[in-house]
Amino acid sequence: MQITLHPIATVTNKRPTPTDDFWGDTISVITLLPHIPEEAFKGIEAFSHLEIIYYFDKADPAKIVYSGNPRGNPAWPEMGIFAQRKKDRPNQLGLCTVELMGHTGRTIKVKYLDAIDGTPVLDIKPVFKEFEGKGDIKQPQWSVELMKDYWNN
Amino acid sequence: MQITLHPIATVTNKRPTPTDDFWGDTISVITLLPHIPEEAFKGIEAFSHLEIIYYFDKADPAKIVYSGNPRGNPAWPEMGIFAQRKKDRPNQLGLCTVELMGHTGRTIKVKYLDAIDGTPVLDIKPVFKEFEGKGDIKQPQWSVELMKDYWNN
Repeated sequence: MQITLHPIATVTNKRPTPTDDFWGDTISVITLLPHIPEEAFKGIEAFSHLEIIYYFDKADPAKIVYSGNPRGNPAWPEMGIFAQRKKDRPNQLGLCTVELMGHTGRTIKVKYLDAIDGTPVLDIKPVFKEFEGKGDIKQPQWSVELMKDYWNN
Repeated sequence: MQITLHPIATVTNKRPTPTDDFWGDTISVITLLPHIPEEAFKGIEAFSHLEIIYYFDKADPAKIVYSGNPRGNPAWPEMGIFAQRKKDRPNQLGLCTVELMGHTGRTIKVKYLDAIDGTPVLDIKPVFKEFEGKGDIKQPQWSVELMKDYWNN
């Protein structure tokens, strides 16, 4: 089965290169592509947070490793690709919960998006509290260490 | 720009028909497709929650309404498609945070997935607390009302 998608919007920001950390002060603008009408954003400012599904268009499918050490760090355990969030993954989908800072016509401004300039956006969904994980979130120590500088400036 | 994706897994559960509510007691099994090696799930049980990106393969692209009343309810305000989570949307992508109940070989068992039997899965990501929305989540009253029975049995 083959699924064909078309980007609905594009990311604009000051981050041209895929690097791992320090996304804390990146502000991004997301602009609808011409085939999507402006009304697709109607009322979006009623929500404080959005989920952005985007496409890692610079990732190289040949680099997919189905199981390996996160960030190549031998001190961290070998994990399957679906137990990691890295960009070299089947279907090259990125996902991030962002803070909505503003909405004007065909654009929204967001904080905490970890996508580089020019990234194609595939979907935008409002965050409902009721869709958050239920119960306490448990995650391994390596993932906490990996995230240490992720949202720093 | 056109993006081609291939499902990586399939959902199996007792829910054959797309209906709106009462997902609370649905347990789903997600099974990797033959082209994905079993090691892609290695260590996944270290996480309590996963994000599942799936494809609404039964949705009809002709039904996309770019702005309208959620669930057709005139008591709720008209909202753009990207301010709603409904299935009739550009690219037909579904997204849900699930609880991981178990992992055996090429399968995982999950709770709180709102996808029907046979749904193609496009990606699976572990939930890191650090990727949750920062600050308080604000959402409009209609979305709270809409979710009233969503996770009930």
